[in-house]
Amino acid sequence: MIILVLNCGSSSLKYQLLDMKSDEVYDLLAKGLVERIGMDMSKLKHQPTGKDVLEVEKPIHDHTVAIRAVLEALTDKKFGVLSSLEDIEAVGHRVLHGGAKLTASKLVDDALIAQVEKCCDLGPLHNPANLKGIYAVKEVMPGTPQVAVFDTAFHQTMPDYAYTYAIPYRYYEQYDIRKYGFHGTSHRYVSAKGAQFAGLDYKNCRIITCHLGNGSSISAVANGKCIETSMGLTPLDGLIMGTRSGAVDPSVVTYIQKKEGLTADQVETMLNKESGFLGVSGISSDARDLGKAADAGEYRAKLALKKLVHGIIHYVGAYTAEMNGVDLVVFTGGIGENNARLRRRVCDNMAYLGIKFDHEANDCRGKDVMITLPDSKVKVAVICTNEELVIAQDTMHIVLNEQE
Amino acid sequence: MIILVLNCGSSSLKYQLLDMKSDEVYDLLAKGLVERIGMDMSKLKHQPTGKDVLEVEKPIHDHTVAIRAVLEALTDKKFGVLSSLEDIEAVGHRVLHGGAKLTASKLVDDALIAQVEKCCDLGPLHNPANLKGIYAVKEVMPGTPQVAVFDTAFHQTMPDYAYTYAIPYRYYEQYDIRKYGFHGTSHRYVSAKGAQFAGLDYKNCRIITCHLGNGSSISAVANGKCIETSMGLTPLDGLIMGTRSGAVDPSVVTYIQKKEGLTADQVETMLNKESGFLGVSGISSDARDLGKAADAGEYRAKLALKKLVHGIIHYVGAYTAEMNGVDLVVFTGGIGENNARLRRRVCDNMAYLGIKFDHEANDCRGKDVMITLPDSKVKVAVICTNEELVIAQDTMHIVLNEQE
Repeated sequence: MIILVLNCGSSSLKYQLLDMKSDEVYDLLAKGLVERIGMDMSKLKHQPTGKDVLEVEKPIHDHTVAIRAVLEALTDKKFGVLSSLEDIEAVGHRVLHGGAKLTASKLVDDALIAQVEKCCDLGPLHNPANLKGIYAVKEVMPGTPQVAVFDTAFHQTMPDYAYTYAIPYRYYEQYDIRKYGFHGTSHRYVSAKGAQFAGLDYKNCRIITCHLGNGSSISAVANGKCIETSMGLTPLDGLIMGTRSGAVDPSVVTYIQKKEGLTADQVETMLNKESGFLGVSGISSDARDLGKAADAGEYRAKLALKKLVHGIIHYVGAYTAEMNGVDLVVFTGGIGENNARLRRRVCDNMAYLGIKFDHEANDCRGKDVMITLPDSKVKVAVICTNEELVIAQDTMHIVLNEQE
Repeated sequence: MIILVLNCGSSSLKYQLLDMKSDEVYDLLAKGLVERIGMDMSKLKHQPTGKDVLEVEKPIHDHTVAIRAVLEALTDKKFGVLSSLEDIEAVGHRVLHGGAKLTASKLVDDALIAQVEKCCDLGPLHNPANLKGIYAVKEVMPGTPQVAVFDTAFHQTMPDYAYTYAIPYRYYEQYDIRKYGFHGTSHRYVSAKGAQFAGLDYKNCRIITCHLGNGSSISAVANGKCIETSMGLTPLDGLIMGTRSGAVDPSVVTYIQKKEGLTADQVETMLNKESGFLGVSGISSDARDLGKAADAGEYRAKLALKKLVHGIIHYVGAYTAEMNGVDLVVFTGGIGENNARLRRRVCDNMAYLGIKFDHEANDCRGKDVMITLPDSKVKVAVICTNEELVIAQDTMHIVLNEQE
């Protein structure tokens, strides 16, 4: 089954075209990225497997035009991988926020669209963009089934004492204010893959997954079910991120509002866009830039990286306690897969768990590898995430089920 | 040295009169409480050691009048314990927030008063009341030396990556926005006492102190120094409390503001006064009431208590990781000293640390006791806190030093 996987941001569109033979056997036919949608000059980068890369710069006004450009590239005589658009049997979308009602991947219909729309104020940066992608496909490829895969879905198994906030209960009843959690598709993929990789029974072990990238979150997965995660109502809470603050005393939010005369929206923007690595270092939101600056002796760059290490140690320790122990810790995401030094700094501080770190194995980037010695009491692995594959798998199953 | 210890709240005044022979040897001469200061009818309860309790109801307009009433009781013919006010050699005050500059107990002078005043917006409920006590003593007992003991002082040894928030750095430089931590006097007392009680070398061990009461916080003390604590800029962050939310995704603050059209002050009041046990349960801010309601099957009372247990496990696990292990966990405060069931629920979930719980020893209230078995890898103790003693000790040392 040929499936187009779409991840639509507010001004970008990432895609993969996968030929799914089964959950495990598949071919990546092409992948690519449209950037700067709606701006003066947009850019499409199309990477067909086994063929030359196509880069086009042209104005792309909206997501509908972007999808048309992607479909053209996919069926292009020189750079294409399909003879006809009819070959695409289904489209899978990454959707950020499913709220309290959308708790699993689902076929797109009007009711689902209405629910995703309702969740726009919980995911104001992402949900409207995800919807643009769904509308565009409806317009350009009418009749092709679409499936929505939610970042929040995997976390729906958290117990009530983990997902409720200790605020007046009516806020939960009235506005669905609770912890949702994000990166669920990644936590789900790398926890299952990690268990398999480590020779553990996924349904009978305790795993902590550290998804560390531009956005970062950590989850506790007990017996195949998520029981806790570091992000909350929105993807702001938890670890320090590229431009996001992560956890702060809630009174910091109101204190700054009062000191600076900021509105709720303004302080929200500050916490989401001007904080994190960027805010602390004053240099960059990119951990690689901070690494260079820290090596050059920059105090605030070092501080920002120390805060990330400290945060990871905090949550891994906390979630180990919440599960009364841990069998496997998984690192994934851009930072988790590539930053060997960070992994070492975290694991060096966790000898109390019986972690015996394999420094040699850890000296690698972007591949699945066990980074503890065979006699380590707790295993630690690097697992490269693949959210697109999970979206394609879910899309395939749901569409095949519908057709039965 | 006879020392009057004062803890002034906005409408209350707690006191103890101690005769300090040394740090360890002292007599409690009297203790008491003035409530509802500034209201229609105030109440003084005076408990002189070895004498009858005096209870007086009369209007007490302000803290100066309250202190006069306390001094009268202390020198009363029938209920008094002093022949003359001159016998009081020094007064020690609990002061909530010392900000970034007041990092240890200190003799009260104009410079200190100015600093404490500057910190009033960091501790708006407490600092003004603490200052009222200082002013009242100045007026009523001019010439008697006063010492301020700060709730924040013990936490000043935290490393930068623990006390900075990942927000734009200028907020720290401009407004001193950082993690301060509270209950420092209690964490300091029970960590030192706990180490002694457990036969550990305080300067060479790792302790986690859980101060659980109407306000609650947990600290990590490594080799006698605090390296982390769960409260932050103000005493709002961390665990669920009587009426305080503890940690929430910072976006919850702005989300509720926008949904309900609340100002920063209004949402701050909600998080401080209407949340926690009270907000979740809808029944009470008192853990004892919640225990009864939970036993009667109330879902939301159970949920609130589960959230406390969950939060304690979270922070104990996190701080264990931050110290790469733990030697001793201490429970203290009204809940920590008296709620055996809660201690059991926490420790039952921490077998992974090698905790061997002593159920029999745990079945006690309000006394210092070891609640793990002798072969437990990590020790757990109940230590009754005594902040007044620490304030008296500091006051004695500082005043004696001045007199040299």
